Amino acid sequence: MSGKDTGGRRSGDGKVRVAVNGFGTIGKRVADAVTRQPDMELVGVAKTRPSFEARRAAERGYRLFVAGGGERAAFDAAGLPLAGTLDDLLHDADVVVDATPERVGKANAKIYSSLGVKAVFQGGEAAEVAEASFSALANYAAGRGKRTLRVVSCNTTGIARAASVLVPRWGVSHWEVTLVRRAADPAETKKGPVNGILPTFRMPSHHGPDVRTIFPELPIATTAVVVPTTLMHVHVNHVRLERPPTDSAELLRAFRESPRFHVFAPWEGVEGTPQVMEYARDRGIGFNDMMENVLWENGLRVDGSDAYFFQAIHQESIVVPENIDAIRAMFELAPDGRTSIRITDRALGLSVR
Amino acid sequence: MSGKDTGGRRSGDGKVRVAVNGFGTIGKRVADAVTRQPDMELVGVAKTRPSFEARRAAERGYRLFVAGGGERAAFDAAGLPLAGTLDDLLHDADVVVDATPERVGKANAKIYSSLGVKAVFQGGEAAEVAEASFSALANYAAGRGKRTLRVVSCNTTGIARAASVLVPRWGVSHWEVTLVRRAADPAETKKGPVNGILPTFRMPSHHGPDVRTIFPELPIATTAVVVPTTLMHVHVNHVRLERPPTDSAELLRAFRESPRFHVFAPWEGVEGTPQVMEYARDRGIGFNDMMENVLWENGLRVDGSDAYFFQAIHQESIVVPENIDAIRAMFELAPDGRTSIRITDRALGLSVR
Amino acid sequence: MSGKDTGGRRSGDGKVRVAVNGFGTIGKRVADAVTRQPDMELVGVAKTRPSFEARRAAERGYRLFVAGGGERAAFDAAGLPLAGTLDDLLHDADVVVDATPERVGKANAKIYSSLGVKAVFQGGEAAEVAEASFSALANYAAGRGKRTLRVVSCNTTGIARAASVLVPRWGVSHWEVTLVRRAADPAETKKGPVNGILPTFRMPSHHGPDVRTIFPELPIATTAVVVPTTLMHVHVNHVRLERPPTDSAELLRAFRESPRFHVFAPWEGVEGTPQVMEYARDRGIGFNDMMENVLWENGLRVDGSDAYFFQAIHQESIVVPENIDAIRAMFELAPDGRTSIRITDRALGLSVR
Amino acid sequence: MSGKDTGGRRSGDGKVRVAVNGFGTIGKRVADAVTRQPDMELVGVAKTRPSFEARRAAERGYRLFVAGGGERAAFDAAGLPLAGTLDDLLHDADVVVDATPERVGKANAKIYSSLGVKAVFQGGEAAEVAEASFSALANYAAGRGKRTLRVVSCNTTGIARAASVLVPRWGVSHWEVTLVRRAADPAETKKGPVNGILPTFRMPSHHGPDVRTIFPELPIATTAVVVPTTLMHVHVNHVRLERPPTDSAELLRAFRESPRFHVFAPWEGVEGTPQVMEYARDRGIGFNDMMENVLWENGLRVDGSDAYFFQAIHQESIVVPENIDAIRAMFELAPDGRTSIRITDRALGLSVR
Repeated sequence: MSGKDTGGRRSGDGKVRVAVNGFGTIGKRVADAVTRQPDMELVGVAKTRPSFEARRAAERGYRLFVAGGGERAAFDAAGLPLAGTLDDLLHDADVVVDATPERVGKANAKIYSSLGVKAVFQGGEAAEVAEASFSALANYAAGRGKRTLRVVSCNTTGIARAASVLVPRWGVSHWEVTLVRRAADPAETKKGPVNGILPTFRMPSHHGPDVRTIFPELPIATTAVVVPTTLMHVHVNHVRLERPPTDSAELLRAFRESPRFHVFAPWEGVEGTPQVMEYARDRGIGFNDMMENVLWENGLRVDGSDAYFFQAIHQESIVVPENIDAIRAMFELAPDGRTSIRITDRALGLSVR
Repeated sequence: MSGKDTGGRRSGDGKVRVAVNGFGTIGKRVADAVTRQPDMELVGVAKTRPSFEARRAAERGYRLFVAGGGERAAFDAAGLPLAGTLDDLLHDADVVVDATPERVGKANAKIYSSLGVKAVFQGGEAAEVAEASFSALANYAAGRGKRTLRVVSCNTTGIARAASVLVPRWGVSHWEVTLVRRAADPAETKKGPVNGILPTFRMPSHHGPDVRTIFPELPIATTAVVVPTTLMHVHVNHVRLERPPTDSAELLRAFRESPRFHVFAPWEGVEGTPQVMEYARDRGIGFNDMMENVLWENGLRVDGSDAYFFQAIHQESIVVPENIDAIRAMFELAPDGRTSIRITDRALGLSVR
Repeated sequence: MSGKDTGGRRSGDGKVRVAVNGFGTIGKRVADAVTRQPDMELVGVAKTRPSFEARRAAERGYRLFVAGGGERAAFDAAGLPLAGTLDDLLHDADVVVDATPERVGKANAKIYSSLGVKAVFQGGEAAEVAEASFSALANYAAGRGKRTLRVVSCNTTGIARAASVLVPRWGVSHWEVTLVRRAADPAETKKGPVNGILPTFRMPSHHGPDVRTIFPELPIATTAVVVPTTLMHVHVNHVRLERPPTDSAELLRAFRESPRFHVFAPWEGVEGTPQVMEYARDRGIGFNDMMENVLWENGLRVDGSDAYFFQAIHQESIVVPENIDAIRAMFELAPDGRTSIRITDRALGLSVR
Repeated sequence: MSGKDTGGRRSGDGKVRVAVNGFGTIGKRVADAVTRQPDMELVGVAKTRPSFEARRAAERGYRLFVAGGGERAAFDAAGLPLAGTLDDLLHDADVVVDATPERVGKANAKIYSSLGVKAVFQGGEAAEVAEASFSALANYAAGRGKRTLRVVSCNTTGIARAASVLVPRWGVSHWEVTLVRRAADPAETKKGPVNGILPTFRMPSHHGPDVRTIFPELPIATTAVVVPTTLMHVHVNHVRLERPPTDSAELLRAFRESPRFHVFAPWEGVEGTPQVMEYARDRGIGFNDMMENVLWENGLRVDGSDAYFFQAIHQESIVVPENIDAIRAMFELAPDGRTSIRITDRALGLSVR
């Protein structure tokens, strides 16, 4: 299937023209990531309100469009030039990445569909919003040629990636995850708690079923608590493998050899999520993002068929490369997932494997 | 074995004379608890330094003794009268509750032993410090007549209590706990982290083996993370039962009927540890303590043989009633554990079951 | 003026019959405090929803009434017996303490007025809600015989109390306060921030003008920031006095001799708000409340005419005694403020001065 | 004075050869900043232990040297090649930036002096450690040709910069600052408090006297509290100006026109330090640093001669450009401070004014 078949609106140089609707935590990251891809072009971003983030978009030369309920006057007052409305933006795009707040994407889906623009949704939407749920390491092929895809949420992406390493090599007969979730993103100042732990009383939590939109048969149960931190989630995993690995080194090697995993050695002094994010600041990719699943050598143990491991998930950025791969799958810009992932990761500055 | 056999130093009215060495989080609670028991007498508390807590001890009429490295002059300057040294205190006591900082108890053990005073140690000490490890619901009988006992730590006590409910009724074939631990007690202002999650890289954590000092064969594995809160620990439990219960109501009933458990109903609006501690403030026992294991009706689920449940553990107070029962066991003041627990709980204002 | 004159609804034994509308942080404390007063009677409390706090009210024998938008069915389902509606409650009362959420009191004012019941409002309401704003140490007389009073907010109460000590003795020519405010109460789990400092961009903050509802001419300017803690506010004060005190001891003595102040000595080891609240737990009044302004000997300095001092304010409880005094003033139950304060503080277990 | 006079060890291309001793928060930033300067060369960094930060240094091609108490074997085990010891490093350098933990610099000073290498110390050292204390906007000239300088601490730098704007234009007759200090840096996981506010009982705090090492006559008084956040300090300022400005716009203009200040407009939605640091992540300089003093348009108010304003200070990075300017002053690499600041800021990606 060529770009033509999918709407014929590809740009003159053959790049897929990408719009981003919503310019918050996910939207701004995906927009930046699109500009770094060799086969994509960012045609603009839509936002409801001016903000320091909108100013940055303008300063980077991103065309700004006012979204749905937004007011042009507020942008004018801020001195931020608008290139038009969301509608105008969509007319220039082959695909839109919907990075609007949870449950808004569902309403937007009709607009996108009526304008014949493909759409990538985020994990805050129900699975039904799109033709398929997507996680690049796991089911890239399922995204090929689709008109709509849903990139699963940060926690689900983290688990699906780990499953992509474990399932094919050793098989999984039982998996339990306790998700220790961050209460708010760093700049979400209205959310709490300030001091305390909140169990999630939906048991098992929704994450397990969500993983099964990617791995339909995976025997996984998840339980979640919310804790007063902003940096990262931490997953405490217990996996029973169908074929016992030789030792923990065998698992560590597999994680190290997979794209989108980062494993810390004990001597590095990374005691928890604060030091992981300090590493990310040192590295300096994007917004000091850590787009990989983070594991620790001394945070993984194998006992017969049982594997125990911690993984830390940077909720702000982990889905960014998956959004890029989703677009590539929908427009069949790469022959397979491994190739798409390599292109994405090289463009983003991640280790290429 | 009578009190006489264990040293013959019982007070004139037949009460066991209890000294408390260390007057911090645990010590001050145990001291108060002792004063409420019908069969015990507080002969004094030892502390190294004056503080608002020492002043309160004096105001309540507790005799103050200066401990090991402490300086009399500092107490004099503060206007707090001393009744003597730790040595003097021990000479007046049948038993001492050692509530000194972790690993100090081991050094103290020799002093206690040489003076022929029985001793109760806390869970921060290694199991070898005492003749037996102790948790009242589980192994009261094991403490009978002993000269030294070690009350297991707050987390271990919480698990041992739950095991005391589950093991005899349904049997446990497999148990996993993720311990989401509070970083510091409310007044420990020097401890962090302020923002972040710290995995405990000892895998499984030491809590599982510690539970087996009480339930030697229990197939339990524990994993821990530390999070920036001061209020309570939360345990995320998955237990596989040998004999499947009918439903979750059956388990809830068993927990509700056991001493030292408190189960919240959904309509009570207790979303997490902050509201649990607010409940404790409303109730007004001790220091607004919550000495029971806390469960939630909607935080427990049974799926065939598998039970999942959250429990919150108030690290400051949960071991207080166990210290009392330990003394009662050592001096055989009650015919059995259930009786001792009833006496303790009635005296402390807890629900008596 | 007798009870008759103010509506004639005093109870048979001459006690003022008090209703409490709203049973959250303030309401539950005021209700408890009323039950401890020799000259007041709690006729019931109104609440919109069942909760663990409603259950406690029932367990303590407080009659429960369903407030405005509340649903009887929810109370029935929870097994909490209702004595009627807010209207029924008001018919039994001489005065109602309105402890509903901010800005709800204004709407309630008409109901109270139409039923001829006196009313005490909280500081979250605008000053216009009542005939006068009230703070017991400062302007008890202004409340005498009033039909409506507004007890100023926790921060304003804290400042007004300090002014009551400073203004009459030394005069104040200039006062600046930086209010370092707690982000949420302990059980308010939905409020943030989790990590960060939020300046209050209203400059000066509203607290200064609010203090002038009590001290009309006070030359005070206040600035506020919000920080991620739940325990207490801290005020950083700089006061220029009209008549220079001899030394800091002179000021400390005045604070120590005033009701509703608590001053810590350095040897007590109270490094900040965590230890203040630990002291409060040790003391065990009410919900482990600290109803006094808290100062530190080594947190007060005098330099010529300039005095600098910290004071910590327990936002949950500091206005509780003021609500009691407000009722006593409205019904002229005491000859003067000092007498009322003594009755209140003795009943609450505070130091009587 | 030329480079020759100061030791004659300038590199072949005339660049000043800079060593960095200590590779933590400050050291790693200064090292990076040095590599971006046209007139400086980084000859290596010294560290006591391997860590993820040491690995990054190696990956960026910085030569690694083992400092004082460090062990070569640990670096070998980590596979990090060492170029020698601190001594070796110093032999290659014209100047060393001492970024070791507080109070270690004092001991190092003798070593530097005996080897004839100039040295820049940080604000954690006492003023006596160096010939002069330094803050680029305020007293660049005082640093010219010196053998040792001390860059004042983050808080002092923030105040000194503000003084550099205010003092020459309007004069300052009185200045009070309440410093609301972050408890720990983001990766300092061992520091607290987790929940609470800690007043600094040294009153006034040491910051005022420290500012006077730069502005000797400045009538400033500072008071500090510590709060549980990791992101930034916030200063609450009240300045009485000798010559009243027309309005707040006049002050804002002066701050905007000064190097090393950043002023946010209300429409940008920057509610506090979390959004400031989010802005910094968006901007992407260094470690997502915010090296400027941060002010808010709506966080500054002028009332006659009195100016009130908030400023936020990024404790990790604010002194980085000052360290660079200090080196430039010591080696007289620029004709004046303004020129040095322009070179530094352009090299670091800051706005050049």
